[in-house]
Amino acid sequence: MKVEGLSYRSIWFDQKVNQVKIIDQRWLPHRFDTVSLLSLKDFQVAIRDMWVRGAPLIGATAAYGIAIQMKKNPSDSSLEEAWRLLYATRPTAINLKWALDRCKTKLLPLPECDRSTAAMELAHKICDEDVEINRLIGYYGLDIIKDIAKKKNGKGPVRILTHCNAGWLATVDWGTATSPMYHAFDAGIDIHVWVDETRPRNQGSLTSWELGNHGIPHRYIVDNAGGHLMQHGLVDLVITGTDRTTAAGDVCNKIGTYLKALAANDNSIPFYVALPSSTIDWTINNGILEIPIEERSEDEVLRITGKTLKGDLETIQVSPSGTKAGNPAFDVTPSRLVTGLITERGVSSASKKGLEKLFPEFIRG
Amino acid sequence: MKVEGLSYRSIWFDQKVNQVKIIDQRWLPHRFDTVSLLSLKDFQVAIRDMWVRGAPLIGATAAYGIAIQMKKNPSDSSLEEAWRLLYATRPTAINLKWALDRCKTKLLPLPECDRSTAAMELAHKICDEDVEINRLIGYYGLDIIKDIAKKKNGKGPVRILTHCNAGWLATVDWGTATSPMYHAFDAGIDIHVWVDETRPRNQGSLTSWELGNHGIPHRYIVDNAGGHLMQHGLVDLVITGTDRTTAAGDVCNKIGTYLKALAANDNSIPFYVALPSSTIDWTINNGILEIPIEERSEDEVLRITGKTLKGDLETIQVSPSGTKAGNPAFDVTPSRLVTGLITERGVSSASKKGLEKLFPEFIRG
Repeated sequence: MKVEGLSYRSIWFDQKVNQVKIIDQRWLPHRFDTVSLLSLKDFQVAIRDMWVRGAPLIGATAAYGIAIQMKKNPSDSSLEEAWRLLYATRPTAINLKWALDRCKTKLLPLPECDRSTAAMELAHKICDEDVEINRLIGYYGLDIIKDIAKKKNGKGPVRILTHCNAGWLATVDWGTATSPMYHAFDAGIDIHVWVDETRPRNQGSLTSWELGNHGIPHRYIVDNAGGHLMQHGLVDLVITGTDRTTAAGDVCNKIGTYLKALAANDNSIPFYVALPSSTIDWTINNGILEIPIEERSEDEVLRITGKTLKGDLETIQVSPSGTKAGNPAFDVTPSRLVTGLITERGVSSASKKGLEKLFPEFIRG
Repeated sequence: MKVEGLSYRSIWFDQKVNQVKIIDQRWLPHRFDTVSLLSLKDFQVAIRDMWVRGAPLIGATAAYGIAIQMKKNPSDSSLEEAWRLLYATRPTAINLKWALDRCKTKLLPLPECDRSTAAMELAHKICDEDVEINRLIGYYGLDIIKDIAKKKNGKGPVRILTHCNAGWLATVDWGTATSPMYHAFDAGIDIHVWVDETRPRNQGSLTSWELGNHGIPHRYIVDNAGGHLMQHGLVDLVITGTDRTTAAGDVCNKIGTYLKALAANDNSIPFYVALPSSTIDWTINNGILEIPIEERSEDEVLRITGKTLKGDLETIQVSPSGTKAGNPAFDVTPSRLVTGLITERGVSSASKKGLEKLFPEFIRG
């Protein structure tokens, strides 16, 4: 999407200089830097130290990492070594393993002389596939926004609330939850986005940065505010992303999503979740019982980093010294609170039946 | 309550030095300072610049301000002038006007020579009355905690979630929502408190400071976390305060309270609100329709102040420069989500009927 008027992806191959480039996301939203990744080591650092983040983007970055290594040394042992080193950067990221395995499966049978070109083509393909999936999510989500705009009949913008950053920075382009918003805005529909701050990691600041750069009107709000806005008719629609979706339509997403779903339900506001079908775990049904929730570092809650008035990055602590924190990173929104799932194949009800209709190949038994 | 092992009120008359002292709350939770207020000017600054905060404490401070002025000059014009100057410090604080009017009504009919003593006695009385009201809230709230402890029968602590700081720092002592917690802890009941951070002003840091100093086990959590904790059986009870309560039991409290009430309701967890009856507005019923919600400064959302690792206070911005914010300060929790109201006369259902039973003198017509 757009940054300062120019179109970007979060990772791309720059043909002019023959290099893979990324947005170094560590300094966002305070500084926009792009960097070239030249060696396998560069790719390891970029994934491990979160210069790039978001499952699809991590997978795409790893694929380019393999390609860069194949150019240098296309041997079997070099491929295995690159797989191992890249996998070790963030071993819990499912998309990372998925992308690395896909590369290995594709490249190992090939003669060494073909591997470099094939690896680069595959990395391009993984990126393009991700962009296409997210474009389709936007295409289908656009209909939902169009319908609401039609009902409002020019009475103000369609006001969409979102939580966390399921944006293009976490994918290669478009994002998931944001894709319908970009599609609607680009189609000339009047929209306004309420951006949840999303404590403790404040990913709302990235969503705000994205939307601001693309020119989409929005306001940044604390996570506490959404219920009040919904009570007073100031939200027409909620769209969030999801990290993991059960076969029955339960949605595991950033902590706090469940509270927004409850408020949407209490105020009869549609609550949609946008997702690539790769996040559906067809082996589980009950998200609350079956999905273990990661308890992350207390420091994420107790310390906050931002820009001082002088422009330096600084970390502060708001709570008293010695305070203990709890930090569950995700919560589960039961399917009963989800109006629909926006996937690359269309919009489905949040249910086994709905998902199976769109993805019949996953029906078991 | 206790600070570093010693018992404190948030305002007190120190007989050794013949001075009114307060806790200078501007630096909490990072620094604990007490200061003497010596002149009318000192009281004006302390209220206006929020060295003291919380309706009951503001009222008590104003009463002492009048007393200090009466000592210096007990004339009618001096009394009127003190009323005017103190009222101007925070004109929207209802308790401020209430306390000032009470002082004026009491003092004006008295001969000038009696006013200084009478004013000081009245200020003491206003403080003691507040402490007694909050003690009674704790006394009645204790029964609720006792019942849960009994049912749990030693299987872990009673886990209470609270939002914002309805603590002793906002009153003269005990606090409202915290009073049942202090009573339970002092009675030897095993409790654990989940303290909502309470963005945007992070008053949870004050609650955490209070509880920590009194020795009550607690954890600081982001406002997003409560729903997940409730889903997983980690919360036995919610207690919050309220800024304004309708005659039908709707509760207007710090933004985000409504989301916690929804989650408590969805998980069959009791949700209690602690309040002095002075916060009940007997003239209104429907809080959502009838209570205007203050929209506060965007800066409260966009900037956060805390302590750096070096120990200095610093203000940072987390969102991108130029971001616009929304900042509704309160929300309304409808009575249907409130299990009960804990008042100084006992626990009532959140309903007109329940409230009228406890406060029959307010039944109209």
